[in-house]
Amino acid sequence: MYRPEIKVFDCTIRDGGLMNEWRFEKPLVKDVFDGLARAGVDYAEIGYRVDKKMFSPKDFGPWRFCEEKDLRDVAYECDTKVSIMCDVGRTDYDAFLPADESIVRLVRVATYVPDIDKAIHLGKHLKGLGYEVSVNIMAVSHALEVDLDEALDQLGETNFDMVYLVDSFGYFYSEQIHWLAEKYLARLPGKELGIHCHNNQQLAFANTIEGIIKGINYVDGTIYGIGRAAGNCPLELLIGFLKNPKFDVRPVFDLIEKYFFDMKKELRWGYELPYAVTGILNKHPRAAMAFLKGVHGNSCSEFFDELLNVDDV
Amino acid sequence: MYRPEIKVFDCTIRDGGLMNEWRFEKPLVKDVFDGLARAGVDYAEIGYRVDKKMFSPKDFGPWRFCEEKDLRDVAYECDTKVSIMCDVGRTDYDAFLPADESIVRLVRVATYVPDIDKAIHLGKHLKGLGYEVSVNIMAVSHALEVDLDEALDQLGETNFDMVYLVDSFGYFYSEQIHWLAEKYLARLPGKELGIHCHNNQQLAFANTIEGIIKGINYVDGTIYGIGRAAGNCPLELLIGFLKNPKFDVRPVFDLIEKYFFDMKKELRWGYELPYAVTGILNKHPRAAMAFLKGVHGNSCSEFFDELLNVDDV
Repeated sequence: MYRPEIKVFDCTIRDGGLMNEWRFEKPLVKDVFDGLARAGVDYAEIGYRVDKKMFSPKDFGPWRFCEEKDLRDVAYECDTKVSIMCDVGRTDYDAFLPADESIVRLVRVATYVPDIDKAIHLGKHLKGLGYEVSVNIMAVSHALEVDLDEALDQLGETNFDMVYLVDSFGYFYSEQIHWLAEKYLARLPGKELGIHCHNNQQLAFANTIEGIIKGINYVDGTIYGIGRAAGNCPLELLIGFLKNPKFDVRPVFDLIEKYFFDMKKELRWGYELPYAVTGILNKHPRAAMAFLKGVHGNSCSEFFDELLNVDDV
Repeated sequence: MYRPEIKVFDCTIRDGGLMNEWRFEKPLVKDVFDGLARAGVDYAEIGYRVDKKMFSPKDFGPWRFCEEKDLRDVAYECDTKVSIMCDVGRTDYDAFLPADESIVRLVRVATYVPDIDKAIHLGKHLKGLGYEVSVNIMAVSHALEVDLDEALDQLGETNFDMVYLVDSFGYFYSEQIHWLAEKYLARLPGKELGIHCHNNQQLAFANTIEGIIKGINYVDGTIYGIGRAAGNCPLELLIGFLKNPKFDVRPVFDLIEKYFFDMKKELRWGYELPYAVTGILNKHPRAAMAFLKGVHGNSCSEFFDELLNVDDV
């Protein structure tokens, strides 16, 4: 499907970092950025920028903090724009330079529906500094519709660049994506939409396609699907699907063979039965990650029954 | 989605056998059949029945031939009907008892579009013996539309029970499934449709859901997605998705934990990069299987370029 407005957004390091505390070596990140640039990827999200007063650099790799000097060691000015993510409630407003002094082009603010006012406050600060701003509303499969509608209406009144539809728990299938995409489009006229899917039920790529079909232009993927738990939409499938001549899947294949085959054996993201259980039941995958470490009984059937009988985990 | 007409069709042993020459031990197959029955699965396809004059029982396990006595060792009369598959051109017409003397309820005839007359000839023989009959048209992503249309029209004139839409190469995405499902429905009024998807691009489950949405009632899955190359739609996801109260996903979880975790390490089905390449390029996965064995150069990028430059493989 060739639609020139479509932007491919890679979050390999940012979302993959959830599996290794963002301890990627700089030569790897540099190689990844360079490969993404050659693949024609529009944005590369290199990590989070969390408040150092809340999280110690001793406990995490550099991509938890994304200092300018670290970013400049791995990225360079080119058509692939550097993005970072920040969480509502974990961000030091003073950690951001004016955009024209930074290598960062886009900041994505991750929020839950009840924190939308805080997200807008932070987004306005970032927009004022000259960054492109996206608000990524997480866990909408747990949101009350009236609250989500109000959040979208508030975002519609901002000058932010994009709003993301996020399937945090890998719960949605196509008809739900269609319903949400139509809702976001109707309440956010003139704003670009993005979609970020998780693969708990092997639907991340499919749901991303459904987003594209409904008019969403910003589509997230990660190399070989790396990401928390079951991971994300595999970037190689997404680029293989898009017919825009600027994209080239080969550099992504090369990165996978050079780094991600072995990394997957170590970090173990991707489809596994406990993630299917949490996906089917619309639960956070942290319960599945605990099950894989031996908590929550011995069998997936027991795990399934346990999750059925709790209000939330 | 609760639609009582939906029938879940398991082909774990039949399609999984493509990965181990159908050498499943009888206690395992018996356990699988029993678990499927407890899960509420409507059909269990236990293997192929190929002509023994063409394939020697010395070279394959029993589920390549599915003799009545072997089937009766592992299956029993219950709400889960026994199915077997036979290929056009590889079938001994005399190998079938009258249906009322057989434990088999359904025979699925696998054919390519150009062999549709042979498939209909075989199907009529089987229907005459009293079996339910399905015709599964393989590789439709390589068929000329006018030929496919004619094949469907011919099938529409038979008294066969079902016709299957098959994505042999894991090439289709939702809009193509919709287009084909609408075509099959329009040309086969009054006949049940089935869908059988492969997972080369992680779209098997998603495409099966799209088939359901378009009105297809017979949906194929295999336990933990076992099957040739990237495998099939995972039965546990399919049953987790369907809301019909007769289905229970727990026996499938239990079978996976008892047998299929370890089996997957040995037989290595599921998503791998070379299968993504053949899926993206609408090629038979045999090229990817050869690549994984060291044929076709050293890197997936080279493999991709090689397949781009051949007319077919």
